[in-house]
Amino acid sequence: MSNMTNRRVTLKARPTGIPQAEDFDLDAVPAPELAEGEILVRNSYLSVDPAMRGWLSDTKGYGTRIEVGDVMRAFAVGKVVRSRNADFAPGDCLMGLFGWQELAAVRADQVLLRVNEKNFPLSLHLGVLGINGITAYFGLREIGAPKAGETVLVSTAAGAVGSCVGQIAKILGCRVIGIAGGPEKRQQCIDEFGFDAALDYKNESDLKTEINQLCPDGVDVYFDNTAGAISDAVLPNLAIGARVAVCGTASVDSWSPWPLGPRCERHLLIKRATMRGFIALDYADRYDEAVSQLGQWVSEGRLRYREEILEGLEQAPAAIARLYSGKNQGKLLIRLPAAKG
Amino acid sequence: MSNMTNRRVTLKARPTGIPQAEDFDLDAVPAPELAEGEILVRNSYLSVDPAMRGWLSDTKGYGTRIEVGDVMRAFAVGKVVRSRNADFAPGDCLMGLFGWQELAAVRADQVLLRVNEKNFPLSLHLGVLGINGITAYFGLREIGAPKAGETVLVSTAAGAVGSCVGQIAKILGCRVIGIAGGPEKRQQCIDEFGFDAALDYKNESDLKTEINQLCPDGVDVYFDNTAGAISDAVLPNLAIGARVAVCGTASVDSWSPWPLGPRCERHLLIKRATMRGFIALDYADRYDEAVSQLGQWVSEGRLRYREEILEGLEQAPAAIARLYSGKNQGKLLIRLPAAKG
Repeated sequence: MSNMTNRRVTLKARPTGIPQAEDFDLDAVPAPELAEGEILVRNSYLSVDPAMRGWLSDTKGYGTRIEVGDVMRAFAVGKVVRSRNADFAPGDCLMGLFGWQELAAVRADQVLLRVNEKNFPLSLHLGVLGINGITAYFGLREIGAPKAGETVLVSTAAGAVGSCVGQIAKILGCRVIGIAGGPEKRQQCIDEFGFDAALDYKNESDLKTEINQLCPDGVDVYFDNTAGAISDAVLPNLAIGARVAVCGTASVDSWSPWPLGPRCERHLLIKRATMRGFIALDYADRYDEAVSQLGQWVSEGRLRYREEILEGLEQAPAAIARLYSGKNQGKLLIRLPAAKG
Repeated sequence: MSNMTNRRVTLKARPTGIPQAEDFDLDAVPAPELAEGEILVRNSYLSVDPAMRGWLSDTKGYGTRIEVGDVMRAFAVGKVVRSRNADFAPGDCLMGLFGWQELAAVRADQVLLRVNEKNFPLSLHLGVLGINGITAYFGLREIGAPKAGETVLVSTAAGAVGSCVGQIAKILGCRVIGIAGGPEKRQQCIDEFGFDAALDYKNESDLKTEINQLCPDGVDVYFDNTAGAISDAVLPNLAIGARVAVCGTASVDSWSPWPLGPRCERHLLIKRATMRGFIALDYADRYDEAVSQLGQWVSEGRLRYREEILEGLEQAPAAIARLYSGKNQGKLLIRLPAAKG
């Protein structure tokens, strides 16, 4: 194995704002040696996620900060090619934090899921059956806790997380409103994902009033992927007892300097509303439950998804910026040659 | 009864910002006639509460808005002098929303508590055994939900609600930090109310850093009576899984135009924290439980309180501004002649 090469994407310089291609280096190093207990995984698909901007930022966030020279932290699916851990055998398919690289030497605690390539395409385990679907599942059910008949509003509604949130809410018997960017994504929410209505925030002159007209009795659950101006238009429209699941802050370009917004306390007080942040990794001991349920819905055709797959590791450095541009159509992934062989 | 006169404080003009004496009129009208089911209450004590500013504001809030010409909405304790309701008899002592007036014709749903003047001074049922104590009790226990050993931080810590919050948290085995205005109130938190530490926000050059030094492991529960700059210094210091009970926004002078502050989403996300607004009236069906427990703690000397009592209805109009100035020492009340006779 010692003659294998590992191509990697490493952090060249810490970005300010949205990470760009030039913030990363592409290099090739010898395949890593395994310590006792580790396994060597050859990645098939690499994930591109909004959370990456937070992982790369200089301000203290959740998760370990990525340092200059480190391999970019990322979810990936791949196959075990060598194992020094009795729990894993060559050929096992795994999803975990394996990084933007071809080969990863990983510990058992970096493995998030065992997956079966016979049931679903491997790529799904990074999207609808991976961290995006899992995030939607727990954020909506545990934090939003919608009851049948309630109104659920979700931002980045055509995205990998948002589209799952809205579809799960429909399955739970809710009325679902999506907020998406652009007329195509707006229409996709309705035609493809089956939402009751959707708004294109880029083409609404008064989003707050539009939400009020669509939700005259208020928004019971707001699944917030954006913060920023979209949230500022939603909060005045909360219903009494509303729950806001804070999942991401995609619309905030930078937290340094810390951005200002309309104070939220009075909305929370008047509406006796709850805002709560969460991250999917906090539910790691329940991933099997989520993936099993999500997989069933996918099999039944009740949970649909879109993927945009870029070919080759060299596409990775520019992919975060593509995600934040909103130009991607569905879950953004990088396919590596291993996926085909 | 028809020759009785009712002196009242009515709204003269809707205030912008903090209500002042000149926003009210004092008048005298014949005692109200009772409809079937109503009771006539002669008030002994009238309450002065921070929530009054919200009730008077032009923006849509919780509770019915007070219109120009209306009697000022207020909690009060008094005695039944006449009844057309079989559930109430002359001599019964009651606490409820009886308004800033001598005599109130009230329906049963305006009565919040039956009180016994033999157990405690009547005035306590507007403070430590009234809406302030009840607010502290439910807000801390239901929203803050502190566990023994956790760190609880409370703003307006020497006030009627804040002092109860801190003392209840101590009873529950928590470490308690108060934030109060001025060196005397700061010292009172420690000496009189038994907090572990207190900060005087008026004399701290860097409140955020001071909180961090007092709470190196973070704030588990923040009982927020102020919003504004104090909250902005607390939120970066939340612990993982923290709960913020949003009880009031005393530091915000006006919500028109709506004030800006540092966005809270990233704090909530990184810390998986919860911010939740509540009002004590939502717990009306559990007041007896709260008052019984609070009364026991008062009897045992474990729950202390301060009162500042102004004499006569004519003191009421200026009292809200006094409350917001922070010059009052403890629960601010108006005593009416009925209290003595």
